[in-house]
Amino acid sequence: MKKGVLLINLGTPQTPTTEDVREYLQRFLSDPRVIDMPAWKWKPILNTMILPKRPAKSAKLYQQIWSPDHGSPLLYYTKQQALQLQKLLPDYVVKFAMSYSDPLISDVLTEFEAAKVDDLTIIPLYPQYSTTTVGSVADDINRFFYRRSVIPNLHLITDFCDFKPYIQALAAKIAASLAEFKPDLLLLSYHGIPKSYVAKGDPYQQRCELTTKLLLTELKLKVPVKQTYQSRFGPDEWLTPATDATLKTLPAQGVKRVLVASPSFVADCLETLHELEIENREYFLTSGGKDFALVPALNADPAFTQVLRQLVLQPR
Amino acid sequence: MKKGVLLINLGTPQTPTTEDVREYLQRFLSDPRVIDMPAWKWKPILNTMILPKRPAKSAKLYQQIWSPDHGSPLLYYTKQQALQLQKLLPDYVVKFAMSYSDPLISDVLTEFEAAKVDDLTIIPLYPQYSTTTVGSVADDINRFFYRRSVIPNLHLITDFCDFKPYIQALAAKIAASLAEFKPDLLLLSYHGIPKSYVAKGDPYQQRCELTTKLLLTELKLKVPVKQTYQSRFGPDEWLTPATDATLKTLPAQGVKRVLVASPSFVADCLETLHELEIENREYFLTSGGKDFALVPALNADPAFTQVLRQLVLQPR
Repeated sequence: MKKGVLLINLGTPQTPTTEDVREYLQRFLSDPRVIDMPAWKWKPILNTMILPKRPAKSAKLYQQIWSPDHGSPLLYYTKQQALQLQKLLPDYVVKFAMSYSDPLISDVLTEFEAAKVDDLTIIPLYPQYSTTTVGSVADDINRFFYRRSVIPNLHLITDFCDFKPYIQALAAKIAASLAEFKPDLLLLSYHGIPKSYVAKGDPYQQRCELTTKLLLTELKLKVPVKQTYQSRFGPDEWLTPATDATLKTLPAQGVKRVLVASPSFVADCLETLHELEIENREYFLTSGGKDFALVPALNADPAFTQVLRQLVLQPR
Repeated sequence: MKKGVLLINLGTPQTPTTEDVREYLQRFLSDPRVIDMPAWKWKPILNTMILPKRPAKSAKLYQQIWSPDHGSPLLYYTKQQALQLQKLLPDYVVKFAMSYSDPLISDVLTEFEAAKVDDLTIIPLYPQYSTTTVGSVADDINRFFYRRSVIPNLHLITDFCDFKPYIQALAAKIAASLAEFKPDLLLLSYHGIPKSYVAKGDPYQQRCELTTKLLLTELKLKVPVKQTYQSRFGPDEWLTPATDATLKTLPAQGVKRVLVASPSFVADCLETLHELEIENREYFLTSGGKDFALVPALNADPAFTQVLRQLVLQPR
C-alpha cells in the first residue's frame, strides 16, 4: 500500500504586489465558507468596494513581512514542515497544498492520484476546527473526489487542538519565551470569526477555549492569562474580546509587559508578523505599555514536525 | 475523543413484495454510479421498461431467500456484523447503514452527529473497490459533509482486498468447505461490472484479480481454480468469463464437482443465495455436473468481525 500525507494551509499572494494580492484576495474572499453571504449580495461588494482598493493597502503590509531569502513566510514554513515530515516518514509521499494559492489542493490531489497513492492522510494545518478553514478544505476534498473513478483510503484530521503532543509543543514554545521574557500577562490571541457563524453551529470558539484550558493545565503558569480574538474583517460582530482593543486598555490596568501567543497559527504569516508584531505592538506601546514580545508560531520547529508525524501515525 | 464506526452495505427491499422491491430497485437503479448513462436517456428506460415488470419477478426471487426468522439475509448479517463489532470495540459507537434502503447513510450520519462522535471510521463492506459500490458510498458521504458545520475526523476505507486478515479469513472459510467437499475445481465468482466502466478507470477488475492471487497464495491449493463474474444486468458487455456460461460448460470439460465461492460479498444476499445457490447450481447440474457446493459468505463469522476490528484499529 502506497501511503501519502497532505498538509494544507490557507495560502498567500505569490508576490507582495497589488496585482498578486488582488488575485489572492479574490480567491480567498470568494469562498462561501469564508464569507457566509449569498453570492448575488456579496459579489458586488467584493468587486466594487474591496478588490479595487484593499489589495494595494494589503500589498504594503505583505511587503513588510516578505522575506528577502524565502518570500512568503507562510509558504516557506509550510514547505519546511512538509520537507521535515517527509524525512520523518520516508515510506510516505508527503506534500503540501494551499486553499487559495499554488500549489492548489485539487492540483496536489491530482499528483497523489498520478503517484497511485492509495492511502492518504490529510491534515489541514488549523489546530482548532472552524467551518471557515477546515470546513472549506473538506469541501475542496469532497469536490475533488465526488464521482471520481479512484478514491484512496482517506483520513481527514479536522481538529487537533486537544491532541496532547500539539498542546505540549505549543506549551514548550510559550515556556521558551517565558524563560527569556517575564510578562505581567500572557495574551492568547486567536484568529476571530463572526459571532453569527458560531450561532449557526461553528464549534471554533469552543475549540479555542478548550485549547486555552489544556494549554494552561500543561503550562502551570503564575502570570495571569487572557484570551482574545484578532483579525476582524467587515462590519459584522466578531468574537470578543478583540486583541487590539484589549492591548489598548491593558496598560491602564497595570499591564506594562505583555507576551502574546497565537495558537491558531502553526506558521507565521501576515496576521502574526504584521497584525500582532507591528500593529498591535504599536497599540500597546502607545497606550502606555513598556514591553511587547511575541511567541513565534511553531513554524519549522522539529517539535511540531513530531506532532504531525504522531497525528499521521496515531493509534486509532 | 468520541469514536465511531459505520459499516455500509448495499441495501435490500424492506419486504419481498413487488411494491417494496420496486421502491428498492428504483433507488438502486437511479444511482448514476450504478447506471452510467445520462438521466434523460436512462429514466425513461427505467420507468417504462424496468420498474413496471422487474419488481414482480425479482420479488419472487427474494421470497425464496427470505428468512422466516430474520427477513432479509443481507440486512440480518450486516446487523450481526455491527453488533459483534460493537462488542469488540466497546469504546466506539458502532452503527451500520445501507446505500439504498433503511437505515440510509445520511440518516445514520445524522445520528453520529447527534451523538457528537468526532472521529468516524467508515467501512463500505466491499473488499474490492469499485466506482459502482464504494464510489457511490463516497459520494453519499461527500454530499452529507459538503458545507456541513461540524465535520469529524473521517477515515474512509475504500478497499480491503489486500488486507492480510481479510484474505486469511476468506481463505479459512474456503478451506473449511474444502475439508468437507472435494471438488474438481474451485470457482471464484465475483460480482461483475460493465467493461466500459473498467475502460473509464474503475480498478475493480484489477482488485478482483489481486484478491484471487492473494487468496491462492494463502490457500496453497491442489485443485484447479477459475475466476468468473456474475450478475450481469442490461445489454452492455460485462467482465468475462461469465459465471453462468462457465458453469454450463465445465461438466463437458470433465468438472463434475464444483465448489463456488464469491469473494465480493461479505454477507449472503440474493446474488449468492439465489443466483449462485439456486440458478447456477441448476445450470451446472443440468449440463452434466454431479455436485455443486457454495462457500457461505463471511456473514456473522467472528473471524470476519475480527477483520473489521483490525481494519478500524490498524496501525497507519
